[in-house]
This record gives sequence, structure tokens and C-alpha cells, in this order.
Amino acid sequence: MALPQNGPTAAILVIGDEILSGRTADTNGNTIARFLTPLGIDLKEIRVVGDVEEAIVSALNVLRRTHELVFTTGGIGPTHDDITADAVAKAFDVGIGYHPQAYALLEARYPPGQFNEMRKRMARVPFGASLVANPVSVAPGFHIGNVYVLAGVPMVMQAMLEAIAAELPRGQKVLSLTLEANVAEGTIAAGLQQLQKAYPDIAIGSYPFYREALPQPFGAQLVLRSSDAKALECAAEALERMLQELGAAPQRMI
Amino acid sequence: MALPQNGPTAAILVIGDEILSGRTADTNGNTIARFLTPLGIDLKEIRVVGDVEEAIVSALNVLRRTHELVFTTGGIGPTHDDITADAVAKAFDVGIGYHPQAYALLEARYPPGQFNEMRKRMARVPFGASLVANPVSVAPGFHIGNVYVLAGVPMVMQAMLEAIAAELPRGQKVLSLTLEANVAEGTIAAGLQQLQKAYPDIAIGSYPFYREALPQPFGAQLVLRSSDAKALECAAEALERMLQELGAAPQRMI
Repeated sequence: MALPQNGPTAAILVIGDEILSGRTADTNGNTIARFLTPLGIDLKEIRVVGDVEEAIVSALNVLRRTHELVFTTGGIGPTHDDITADAVAKAFDVGIGYHPQAYALLEARYPPGQFNEMRKRMARVPFGASLVANPVSVAPGFHIGNVYVLAGVPMVMQAMLEAIAAELPRGQKVLSLTLEANVAEGTIAAGLQQLQKAYPDIAIGSYPFYREALPQPFGAQLVLRSSDAKALECAAEALERMLQELGAAPQRMI
Repeated sequence: MALPQNGPTAAILVIGDEILSGRTADTNGNTIARFLTPLGIDLKEIRVVGDVEEAIVSALNVLRRTHELVFTTGGIGPTHDDITADAVAKAFDVGIGYHPQAYALLEARYPPGQFNEMRKRMARVPFGASLVANPVSVAPGFHIGNVYVLAGVPMVMQAMLEAIAAELPRGQKVLSLTLEANVAEGTIAAGLQQLQKAYPDIAIGSYPFYREALPQPFGAQLVLRSSDAKALECAAEALERMLQELGAAPQRMI
């Protein structure tokens, strides 16, 4: 369920055929999600599209108009299938060309004669964009309007996130408290529903698990989220009482 | 890039606050992607939204109108945060109620007195939907129009996919051939671009990697995809020659 809106909203656009074919399991979405949560930025949606200009432009134009921040990953390398910069320029209806600073950084990176036409593609950014530093492999990302365009290689993407952290708007940090209990979801469900009604501003989620370990191979993790620490603690204590009455031995997870 | 359309198109809608908060890394998107590719079903988009009815309804109504198949995962359990069935009914503008067969299956699963109101929620499906078998934990998914509504628990989701495999429309299988080479992307990029122009119906992707192992810590995996085995082999041989000329020792990956 939706928490009361306290911070900026965000969306992630993951770009790459390799995700849709199943060849690569995306990890960037989760990395960005875990990065945004402590900043109080409210991630509302993740989309994955292929290396297809029309799909990127259309997704980006929806997401940048419906969320305060958009993060894209993938498609900013030197090869023909790296079309993100052009697609972003098209979405914003601006031109694109070599960014002098990006060009200089990349030119300095390669031995003489090796800064070829394809590598120069990595210096192309939409007009009006500012650069996002790449402390790992030099080729920068960029920032235009409310959109941050980041690399697809996870190590590089992560370094870029760190590079932009200080400039992002923030909300109140959403706190999270997890109780694990040896209880079937269906046994605690009515109690959880009551608790949710009593605490409408706390997001309560229930996640069943199955494990091989006996004697109790199943249970549920019950997650409470709110930016109000006091309300969170009250709700957690109420839930603990409820679970104890069911003999479910709740444990707070760290 | 987009391959020539040969089979049905598909989209995945992953539903769950826990993915957007970063608490859980989604694996269902990748599992479904790897399931669809050999069937020749062309996955065009993955979206992740939270446990918010409006977000689910709106995403589902876009996806089901723009793709031949839609697969949702998550939100069909017994707890208050499981709202997928209601959201799907709303998206299709149909009523929702207990499905007699689902109700009977679930009633038989629980000891007397334990099939409570919340567990009965798992028997609610939109009017007109047919059931998707759940060989793991009984509670079924369902199928309405072009939308398959599957569980969020990966083990259950996977079993449901197997259960529906035989009834899905298929396209020609897309074959994939990967060459790994000790070459910087920027060195091969111009050649790749030429190859792409020569083989416009083959999707050519380039994925750089960085590894700790010396003497060559970086390289690229070059992926060729097509449903035309002969064209794929021709393109692969051309690419191998190109890489050998660069001294890059290409290896076919299995």
C-alpha cells in the first residue's frame, strides 16, 4: 500500500535487450531501490524496455512527467546498440552533440589514435545536459531535466549513484521494521488487516517463506514501514502481542 | 534492437511494495523472461508497481492492450496487501467472487475450522477467469482475457508457468549465439556496426565485462540473436574473423 507522500517520487527505466531476453538478470533496479529508500525518495515504478528508440522515448516521456525523478540505466556505451543518449535527446526534443568536458575526459583516457569514432559516441549528450561523473571507467552519465542517465554495468552504475547522491532532493527517511514469525499467513491475516486499519499510515506487508529446515518449514516476515518511529514501534508491539497470542514466537529481524 | 516480429508479444507486471523498497530483489521477471524466450514469445516490457490498486489497474490496462500476453506476479495471497485479484477485476471492469473450484480446492487443503475468511480471499477471482493450477501450495492463479495472474513466491510462480506452458501461443524460437573476446568494446564497435548493417534482421548486442583475472581483466560478450540459424552462423563466422584480425581470440560460449 502507499505510504503518505513525504518525499520526491521516482521511477527507474532499465534499458537493454539482454534483460528482456533473460540473458541478464537485472540488478540495477534493486541497487537503485536500496539507494533511494534511505534518502526518503519514494520509488513508484520500475520499467524495463529493450534497445529500441521508440520504446525508450515513449517510456521516458511518461515517467519523467509522472515522477519527480527518473533514473535510467544502460545503453550509454560505444557500440551501435547503445542508443540511450539519442533517445533521451529525442524525448526532450533537443539536439545532441559532443560535450566538451566529456570529450576531453575520454580523449585523455585513450592512447593516441585509439579515441576512435565509436568511442567518441560516449561523449555525445543531449544539449542542456550536465555530466554525471564516472569514477570507474571515465565515460560519463548525464543529467537533463529530472532524468539521470546512468551506465548499465552495475559497478559503474553504483559509482554514478554515489556521485549524484549529494545533489538529490530528499524526503523523510522511511523506517522499516520486520518481524519474522513461525505462522501461516492465513492465521495472522485477519489480525494484520485489523492492524492495518488501526495504523492507516503504516505500510504493512506480509511475505511468506518456505524453508527446508524442520520442525517449522514455513512462516512469514511481516514488514512495517513508516517515517514515524513512534507509530512504528507501537504497531510493532501490537503485532508482537498478536503473534505471541498465536504462539508464533515473533522475532525482530535486523 | 528489435528482431523482426515472429511470435506473440508479451509484457510482465511485477506487483509488490517489497520490490520497490528494495527489500526483495525481483527474480520472477528474469524467470519469466527465460521461460518465454525458447517459446518464441517476444517479451517487450517489464514493469514493477507497488501494492496500490490504481497503479496496478492503470499499468495492466496499458499492457494488456499493447501486448498479446501479459503475466503478472504477486499479490494473490490471503493478506490485506494482496489486492491483485480485485485490481484485475477492476481493470477488466468485471465482478469478482469465489470461484467454486478454487474454493473447493482450498477448503480441502485446510483442517476443519482453518479455512477462515482471509484464506477464502484466495478463492476470489474475477468473473470469467479460468484457474491456473498451483501444484506447490494449492491456491490457484488465474487467466482472464490475455492476462495470466501468477503467484509472487518464486517457487510457486515457476510451477504455475510450467502449468500454463502448453496453452501459450508460440513463435519461432529465437536462437542466440555468444562470442566472448578479450577486446575492448570501443575496438570492435565499428566492426559490429558494419555487421549490424549487413545483417539487419539479427539483433547484435555487446556486453562489456570486467574481471579480476589477469592478464586480460576486461573484454566483451557479443550476442547475436535470430530465428534464422543459417544467417546466425554466417554472421557469427564474420564476427569471428573480425575478432581474430584484431587478435582478440573469440570463444563461442555455451
